[in-house]
Amino acid sequence: MLIMGDTMDDIKFRLPKRKDGQKTFDRIIDTAKKLFSKKGYQATSINEIIEKSRIATGTFYLYFDDKFALYSYVLSMYRKAIRKAISEGIHDATSRHEKERLGLRAFLKFAWNDPLAYRIIWESMFADKELFREYYEAFSKDYVRQLQHAVDDKEVRDDIDLETLSYVLMGISNFVGLQVLFRETLTEKDLDHITDEVMKILKDGMFK
Amino acid sequence: MLIMGDTMDDIKFRLPKRKDGQKTFDRIIDTAKKLFSKKGYQATSINEIIEKSRIATGTFYLYFDDKFALYSYVLSMYRKAIRKAISEGIHDATSRHEKERLGLRAFLKFAWNDPLAYRIIWESMFADKELFREYYEAFSKDYVRQLQHAVDDKEVRDDIDLETLSYVLMGISNFVGLQVLFRETLTEKDLDHITDEVMKILKDGMFK
Repeated sequence: MLIMGDTMDDIKFRLPKRKDGQKTFDRIIDTAKKLFSKKGYQATSINEIIEKSRIATGTFYLYFDDKFALYSYVLSMYRKAIRKAISEGIHDATSRHEKERLGLRAFLKFAWNDPLAYRIIWESMFADKELFREYYEAFSKDYVRQLQHAVDDKEVRDDIDLETLSYVLMGISNFVGLQVLFRETLTEKDLDHITDEVMKILKDGMFK
Repeated sequence: MLIMGDTMDDIKFRLPKRKDGQKTFDRIIDTAKKLFSKKGYQATSINEIIEKSRIATGTFYLYFDDKFALYSYVLSMYRKAIRKAISEGIHDATSRHEKERLGLRAFLKFAWNDPLAYRIIWESMFADKELFREYYEAFSKDYVRQLQHAVDDKEVRDDIDLETLSYVLMGISNFVGLQVLFRETLTEKDLDHITDEVMKILKDGMFK
């Protein structure tokens, strides 16, 4: 639910308890995604979110203490959704190589299907510098843990700094994700092709 | 001066002709960098830029048609500065491998010295989607051109899609740049170390 354990106490939101509350809650989230991704965090006002969600002012505060609480919640939703997409994608993988390949493919597909995700995550740089930093540092730490297992299993080289490797891998997915987003069309075959090209580089490097 | 040739006609600014005008112009740019990187494009108003730059309203319009013109100008400055830093960095390189290594090192150093650059470039996603896309697509095209030379010279593999490789390389610099920005301190030795780790991956891949 939350962006990370450490900041759990800082995020002030309350989930709805009833079905009609859930509908209102979902509408607020939907409006927030649209406005945050279109105008950015700073330029979006709570009043605008309230108005576009067609709710009473008091209703907003039933669920969220403030705009930052709402933004943090939306960011945590994306974090969960991205992790879920990747973990489902790599479900059948039997090697680290397969995990990287299927994980990248799942991430690219997620980006293609939900382009707002990029804007909202990158926007966290403006919403709160620490939130942005924590988002990527937490992702990096998880990655390092997994890569360490792969080093122990002799699947990944043992002579590379894994923190740097984790940022290399995050950078590749995020920017190849941009390459995908910049396209007009994308087929499953294109996704396979782009993923294969990246894996060639990760396997044997770029040089002759 | 401009972000790219194609959009030259769209960007509406006028450079100062006299020395005192240059001072005022520089103050506007300086204020703009601070406000755009702190609050983002959308939440920054022209009035605020005028007020913080301590100029008359009419003075702003001497140089820029509107906020977008100012933002585009600042972005083009960063683009020029980044390219200059990289091209100076790789000046003595004699192979593509050296160019990648020195170029990455120069980029990381630039990011460390001018962290606002990141925020302003990434912010272009909110200022104008097309500007953001053009920024990275132009960078990618230039990269592909250089990589093609290296393929022709048999320095880079001839079996990888170069557009994908260009996004891989941009992603690596940008995210290893984040890794660097998240640090409290950074020495020249740290820079060398991080660059070397990345080059190991680009040379032989990440797997055992």
